Amino acid sequence: MSNIPNSAQLGNNVVIEEDVIIGEHVVIGHNTILLKGTQIGDHVTVGSNCVLGIQPSINQRMRKIAKMDKQLTIESGARIGHVVSIYSGTQIGRNVFIGDHASIRENVSVGEESVVGRAAIVELNTSIGKSCTIQTLAYVTGDTTLEDHVFIGPCVSMSNDKYMGAQDYSLKGPHIKKGAKIGNNASLLPGITVGSNTIIGAGAVVTKDAEDNIVAAGVPAKKINS
Amino acid sequence: MSNIPNSAQLGNNVVIEEDVIIGEHVVIGHNTILLKGTQIGDHVTVGSNCVLGIQPSINQRMRKIAKMDKQLTIESGARIGHVVSIYSGTQIGRNVFIGDHASIRENVSVGEESVVGRAAIVELNTSIGKSCTIQTLAYVTGDTTLEDHVFIGPCVSMSNDKYMGAQDYSLKGPHIKKGAKIGNNASLLPGITVGSNTIIGAGAVVTKDAEDNIVAAGVPAKKINS
Amino acid sequence: MSNIPNSAQLGNNVVIEEDVIIGEHVVIGHNTILLKGTQIGDHVTVGSNCVLGIQPSINQRMRKIAKMDKQLTIESGARIGHVVSIYSGTQIGRNVFIGDHASIRENVSVGEESVVGRAAIVELNTSIGKSCTIQTLAYVTGDTTLEDHVFIGPCVSMSNDKYMGAQDYSLKGPHIKKGAKIGNNASLLPGITVGSNTIIGAGAVVTKDAEDNIVAAGVPAKKINS
Repeated sequence: MSNIPNSAQLGNNVVIEEDVIIGEHVVIGHNTILLKGTQIGDHVTVGSNCVLGIQPSINQRMRKIAKMDKQLTIESGARIGHVVSIYSGTQIGRNVFIGDHASIRENVSVGEESVVGRAAIVELNTSIGKSCTIQTLAYVTGDTTLEDHVFIGPCVSMSNDKYMGAQDYSLKGPHIKKGAKIGNNASLLPGITVGSNTIIGAGAVVTKDAEDNIVAAGVPAKKINS
Repeated sequence: MSNIPNSAQLGNNVVIEEDVIIGEHVVIGHNTILLKGTQIGDHVTVGSNCVLGIQPSINQRMRKIAKMDKQLTIESGARIGHVVSIYSGTQIGRNVFIGDHASIRENVSVGEESVVGRAAIVELNTSIGKSCTIQTLAYVTGDTTLEDHVFIGPCVSMSNDKYMGAQDYSLKGPHIKKGAKIGNNASLLPGITVGSNTIIGAGAVVTKDAEDNIVAAGVPAKKINS
Repeated sequence: MSNIPNSAQLGNNVVIEEDVIIGEHVVIGHNTILLKGTQIGDHVTVGSNCVLGIQPSINQRMRKIAKMDKQLTIESGARIGHVVSIYSGTQIGRNVFIGDHASIRENVSVGEESVVGRAAIVELNTSIGKSCTIQTLAYVTGDTTLEDHVFIGPCVSMSNDKYMGAQDYSLKGPHIKKGAKIGNNASLLPGITVGSNTIIGAGAVVTKDAEDNIVAAGVPAKKINS
């Protein structure tokens, strides 16, 4: 059994599995599911129809996770939208905002005050800094690092698999340095670095590292300003 | 309490909050949630696992809405798919079709006979005309105008923030004029206008206004025909 | 009434309509809905908040389906994620993996051992071969053929309507031949063929057929290697 404080407001048909920890003044929407072990801090709001604390499932076509904390932890003041799914082994920082229909995999950290937009997807083993903005329908692939104050525009796409499944390759997503901004629908290739405060134009295809403090755009992306 | 006509067909575990108005011959799928104040016209069909009538939530990283009607209104004959979320202060016109997994924010109007595709997202303060088609996974940003008979292809991306969060900027989405057609996965920049009956090619990046009755394509998009 | 074997594990608030067939050792998550006629094989796992076996709905703006098997069939060993929707008349093969938030329309076949990624969308009348990988947020349009061992990168976009609704056109999606690989966020135009073992670069726009065993990239995509 999980202990639910009197200050919690629960919607209809909420499912709370065992070993769930719920802080004070938490609001949980209708039909939302808190799976085993989920930890929710004070003043957290969760929308309707969410599934939180999912255990990763493995099939033979997908790699195993070497190590993982078992709990999903949502820190105080975070707001989770509606129809959101988040895996176990992930930490959602203080005052983070997660948009409706978003999905976040296991072993991810989202730094405090960051925003993960509507229907955005964050894959496993990814680190997102503080005060980042990931906009609607953006795709943050696995094994990616976003430093603090990064802006990822809507529909940005990333990849972490240089050989598209063809070789035994150590997967590596992009590394986006502090304050960089990626325009809408840009494509980032595996393992590239975008420098600090650099701006990537909308629709650009970033095939190699972009240095600090430049503007790059085009297919493939080239420096157009600094 | 909300008054539910005898002609309504409700699925299992449906949640209907207070002050909801339901017309005649309405069908509501299993586990769907009608939040406070939602108004549903005659002969409307809603799928399963939807959340309708969401009140906007504000955090300090997101702008406030100046004014908003409080209700979500879904007019007669509209069909809403499964796993759909729609906010309050929005009007869904007669015979509109909303695809599964779509999400529509507050203060949006969708004109009669329009289609919003599967997993498409429409952000706040946006006006969609009559008989428009917005295809699967398309992203219609906030503060956008689509006139009548506009076609937005699958995975089209738009932006409304020229400075990507860096400056205090009046947000402005694209303005797509009557009968224009945007090809799949094209990217539209903030504030651009696409002229009446103009066609934008697949994958184009539209960085400035496109005049009426032309065909434009490429990165950046250039006129290739008229 | 549907017959549920003793070996089945059902979550809370599961809805099972009539004429549903459930094999041995099946696991169904909380709040999941199995609509009329759905057939689930042995050792299948389904996550929470899914809607399976949806009957297609038709409005006057959408074409009718000429013929369709009535059931959704999920074969043994398949794993279906959370918040997934799948239509009737579709066959999910043995050991297939369907990611969270994915949606698959009617009259689709997904070959054994294939993976359909998180939030990926597969439209109607589409054939997916064996051991294919369709990554996160990819869009597989209607009337498309993927042969065996095809790789579709994240956020890939396809179209099947050359005239974007303007003419009465026989819809035709891409044909991707055996072992081809499509890079992330590439755009494929209606009716194009990608040859066997051909690689399409990230962000490419494929406007005409690509022969076998080449590498093509750019906007529009051109052969850069073979």
